Amino acid sequence: MPFVTVTTDFGGPAAVMKGVIWRIAPDARITDLSYTISPQNIREAAQMLDRQVFYFPDNTVHMAVIDPGVGTARRPIAAHIGNQFFVGPDNGVFTPMYERAERHGWPMTVVHTNNPDYWLPDVSHIFHGRDIFSPVTGHLAAGVPLTDLGPVITDPVRINLPRPVVSSFRVTGEVAMIFDHFGNIITNIHRDDLAQLGGAPEALNVRIGSVIIRGMVNTFGERPLGTLIALIGSSGYVMLAITNGSAAQRLRPQIGDPVSVELFVG
Amino acid sequence: MPFVTVTTDFGGPAAVMKGVIWRIAPDARITDLSYTISPQNIREAAQMLDRQVFYFPDNTVHMAVIDPGVGTARRPIAAHIGNQFFVGPDNGVFTPMYERAERHGWPMTVVHTNNPDYWLPDVSHIFHGRDIFSPVTGHLAAGVPLTDLGPVITDPVRINLPRPVVSSFRVTGEVAMIFDHFGNIITNIHRDDLAQLGGAPEALNVRIGSVIIRGMVNTFGERPLGTLIALIGSSGYVMLAITNGSAAQRLRPQIGDPVSVELFVG
Amino acid sequence: MPFVTVTTDFGGPAAVMKGVIWRIAPDARITDLSYTISPQNIREAAQMLDRQVFYFPDNTVHMAVIDPGVGTARRPIAAHIGNQFFVGPDNGVFTPMYERAERHGWPMTVVHTNNPDYWLPDVSHIFHGRDIFSPVTGHLAAGVPLTDLGPVITDPVRINLPRPVVSSFRVTGEVAMIFDHFGNIITNIHRDDLAQLGGAPEALNVRIGSVIIRGMVNTFGERPLGTLIALIGSSGYVMLAITNGSAAQRLRPQIGDPVSVELFVG
Repeated sequence: MPFVTVTTDFGGPAAVMKGVIWRIAPDARITDLSYTISPQNIREAAQMLDRQVFYFPDNTVHMAVIDPGVGTARRPIAAHIGNQFFVGPDNGVFTPMYERAERHGWPMTVVHTNNPDYWLPDVSHIFHGRDIFSPVTGHLAAGVPLTDLGPVITDPVRINLPRPVVSSFRVTGEVAMIFDHFGNIITNIHRDDLAQLGGAPEALNVRIGSVIIRGMVNTFGERPLGTLIALIGSSGYVMLAITNGSAAQRLRPQIGDPVSVELFVG
Repeated sequence: MPFVTVTTDFGGPAAVMKGVIWRIAPDARITDLSYTISPQNIREAAQMLDRQVFYFPDNTVHMAVIDPGVGTARRPIAAHIGNQFFVGPDNGVFTPMYERAERHGWPMTVVHTNNPDYWLPDVSHIFHGRDIFSPVTGHLAAGVPLTDLGPVITDPVRINLPRPVVSSFRVTGEVAMIFDHFGNIITNIHRDDLAQLGGAPEALNVRIGSVIIRGMVNTFGERPLGTLIALIGSSGYVMLAITNGSAAQRLRPQIGDPVSVELFVG
Repeated sequence: MPFVTVTTDFGGPAAVMKGVIWRIAPDARITDLSYTISPQNIREAAQMLDRQVFYFPDNTVHMAVIDPGVGTARRPIAAHIGNQFFVGPDNGVFTPMYERAERHGWPMTVVHTNNPDYWLPDVSHIFHGRDIFSPVTGHLAAGVPLTDLGPVITDPVRINLPRPVVSSFRVTGEVAMIFDHFGNIITNIHRDDLAQLGGAPEALNVRIGSVIIRGMVNTFGERPLGTLIALIGSSGYVMLAITNGSAAQRLRPQIGDPVSVELFVG
C-alpha cells in the first residue's frame, strides 16, 4: 500500500498533481502535508517536512514543490533517507533529512531524476511539479527502484540551518518558525541542547529581545491565561506561547531573531 | 474498509496525524472534516460535527482535536454513538451527539482511553492529537474493540447548547453559527420547533435585533437578489441569508444574539 | 478503482459530501480539486476544471458544486466527455469540456439526472451538493451506467468564454484568471493562437492597459528578479508574471481586461 504526501507553496490543493500520481499509481493514498508554505520559502518547507515525515508509514513518498528555480539548471532529485522517500527540486528543501541521516547513521541515497521515461511526455518550462515531480512520485509509489530514475549524486544542495551555540550557562539560538494560527514561536534550540546546561526547567530563563521569561514550564496549564510561557514543543524544540493568546502578536518576532536559554544562578 | 475524519482548529491540514493513523491502519480512508474551527472553539466544532458525521459510512471514526486543556487532567475519550465512532478530549465537543443518542434512544458507549498500549511510545505534554488521539483513532479504524482502549465512563463532560423557548405565538432562539464565506447565519431554531407554532412559512416573521423579515421562504430564488431572507437551512435550522450577498455582513451578529420566529396574526 | 474530485465555492472542505459518496462507493479515492472558487463564479470553476481534469485517471468523476441556481428549475446533470465523468448543475460550468469534445471530436453524452432513485431520500431546497450531486457521483463511481441516471439531453447550458481575435500582426484577448497567491495573470490567448502570428517569442510584445512587455520569454530565470515578464503558462496560455513578485499587485487587472500580443516589426 503506497502512501504519498504533497508539500507546496501553491496556496491551495494541487489536484492536478494527484491526478498524475494516480494515473501511474492508482493504489496510492495521497494527503497534503502543507500547501500554505510561504511562496518560495525553502527553509519553512524543510522544517515542516522534518517535523512530520518520520511519523508516516515506511516507504511513504514525500513530494515537495517549492521551486523558485523551475526552468533553470537546478536538478530534479529523489532520495531514500531512513525509511522514507523524497522527491523535489535540488534546492536544499531536504537538508534536515540529510542531517538527520548523518546524525543517526541512516543509509541515504540521492539520485538526479533525469530519466525522461519517468516524466510526462510534454514538460513545461514552469510547472515541473506536474510534469516531472508528480510522475516520478507516482513511479516510486508504484515500485520503480530509485536508481532507475537517474544517476546517484553525492552533492545535493544544502541550505544553512543555523545551530544554537551552547556554553556553560547559556544556549543561544534563534526563531526558526512562527505558527500564526495559534501564535506560537518555535526556536531552533532542542531539548538535547538544554541537557548540557543541566538544571530543571523551572531553573531556566528564556530571553528574546528585551523580554525575559523566568522559568520554563512543562505544559500550558501551569500559568494563568494570557501569560507568556516557554516550554518544549511537540517536536522537541523550545517554544514560546501564550495560552488563549498569541506570542507572535505580542512579540512580533522575525525568523532568525536571537533567543537564549540561560541557567538561573541568581 | 475503515473511514476516518479529522476536525481541528489548526488552520491547515494536520498531516502528521494522518501519518500516525496510516502506520496503524493502512487501509483507512481519511478526510479532513474541518481544520478552520476558530481556535479552541468547542461549540463551533461540536456543531460542525453534528451537521455532518451521520452522513458517513457506518463505523467511521471521527477524531476531533480542539483541545484547550491539553496537558491538564482532562480525560482523553472515545465513544460509539449510533453507527459512528468518536475520539477526542473530554471537553464537551461531542455533546450534540450525546443529545442525539438520548433523543433517538441509540446505544452509546464512552470510554476513558487511558490504556497507553494504544498511544505513541512518547507522549508530549502539548500535542495529544498526534500522540494519543491519532493512534487511538488508528487502532479503532484497525478494528480494536472500543472497550480495550480503557474503562467505560458515564459522565462525559457536556457543554451548554441553548435550546429555543417555544410559546404559542413565538419561538425564541439565538444565533448558533455564522458562515462567513457565504455570509449565512444559522440559528438554533429547528423546523420541528416551528411545527408547534403552526402556520405556513409565509405566515412566519423572523426578528433579529431591530430587523423583521416578513414571511419565510422555501429557497433562494423566491425574493429579488439582495433581499434579506429567512428559510430552513440544509440541517433543518432557521437560517438568515442574502442571495448574492452576505447576511452576516449586513447584520453583523454575534453567536448567542437572540432570534425569534413569530406567527403573524395581524 | 474509482476516483472522484470535488470543486466548490464553499471556502472549506465539504466533508459531508465525501461521506455521502463513500456510503455509496466505499472504494472511491476522493480529492478536493478546489474549494476556494469565488462564490458563485461559474467561469472560474469552469477554467479550473479544464486545466486539471484530463490529467486524472480514466473515468474519474469530477463533481462541481458552484450552484447559484439551487432550488430553482435549473437541471442537475451528469456527463461523459472524453475519458472523464462530470456531475453538477446545468449552469455552464462544464462549457470548456463541451468545447474540447467538439474541437477533438470526442464522444460526449449529457444526461438530466432526474431519477430520484439515485438521490438521497430527503432533498433539501438549498444543498443539492449533498442531496443530489454527491449520491449521483457515488453511483457513477460505483459503476451505475450514466444513462440510468436520467434522460439524455442535447442542449446543456453554456457560458460565454470569449475567444481571442487573431489578425496578421496582433492577437487580442483578455485576462481570464488571476492567481492571487503567486500574483500570476493568465490570459485566454493560447500558444496555438500565437503560431498564426509567426515570430519567435522574443519578437512578440505583450500589451495590457498602458504597459508594454517587450519580448516574451520561455521561463522565469531569463529576466532579473522583479521584472514583469510574459511567457506561456503551464496550460498553454499567455501568462504575465513577476519572478519573486506579483504581477497582479503591480497591474491590478480585472477579469476581462484586454491583453494583446503583437508581432514586433519595428
